[in-house]
Amino acid sequence: MTEVNRDFSELYGYRFEDLKPEMSAALSKTVSEADILMFAGVSGDTNPVHLDAEFAASTMFGGRIAHGMLSAALISAVFGTRLPGPGCIYLSQTLKFKAPVKIGDTVVARVTVKELKTEKRRAVFSTVCTVRGNVVLDGEAEIMIPARA
Amino acid sequence: MTEVNRDFSELYGYRFEDLKPEMSAALSKTVSEADILMFAGVSGDTNPVHLDAEFAASTMFGGRIAHGMLSAALISAVFGTRLPGPGCIYLSQTLKFKAPVKIGDTVVARVTVKELKTEKRRAVFSTVCTVRGNVVLDGEAEIMIPARA
Repeated sequence: MTEVNRDFSELYGYRFEDLKPEMSAALSKTVSEADILMFAGVSGDTNPVHLDAEFAASTMFGGRIAHGMLSAALISAVFGTRLPGPGCIYLSQTLKFKAPVKIGDTVVARVTVKELKTEKRRAVFSTVCTVRGNVVLDGEAEIMIPARA
Repeated sequence: MTEVNRDFSELYGYRFEDLKPEMSAALSKTVSEADILMFAGVSGDTNPVHLDAEFAASTMFGGRIAHGMLSAALISAVFGTRLPGPGCIYLSQTLKFKAPVKIGDTVVARVTVKELKTEKRRAVFSTVCTVRGNVVLDGEAEIMIPARA
């Protein structure tokens, strides 16, 4: 590979020393039919509850629902792009699926610093996705964050 | 909506009564650059460790890595399409990200029945993703499964 002369430091997000308890960031997205189709394609999850409107209407959900992992992916997007942002390492995540997300719903994914483990440069975050203020997904994540140079 | 006259029962997967401890199913996928681009698009996770080969080469990973939630999505695809299959309801999932997945890696996602909770029609599954036999993601999931009619 040709040698690269770039300053990558400007791409990094928060450093561990900059995190404080209760810091929070969010990302929101209106889930479209196209999102569900793309998610089915990339994951291989072609469950008819996502793809077959007639089947889905016959279930307790009453219509097509988004893949639960699509909401989880929005949480991971907050970590990867907002807080802490690039440079962090995703160690673990718990997910409780509380309610379905339907086509047209706007999902707000929010992460909030819950605990800082200074010796290991790790942070525990609460992670929640809501639709119209109702929790559809919650859980907790542990992230490792780079220290200042 | 026009009334639909279809027998949806043929679309369902396993019923709760058909599950036994140690039953297992898997799904595999070679992760391509296109998968990472699609996952970035649908999730909004544009972290340069996924999209910028030069930045990624400067990190401890030494190159671009797939989104961890892409492996998680493969686990959810096994539940949604193989075991238990359509009709099941995803209640919870834990994820421990153990190692990165790179472009060209073939991920095998496997779920195995660990415990059956008969009174609630729920099953606990161990869930693991491997690349060349090495664990890249593990965890546990709880699923509700419909009973026989």
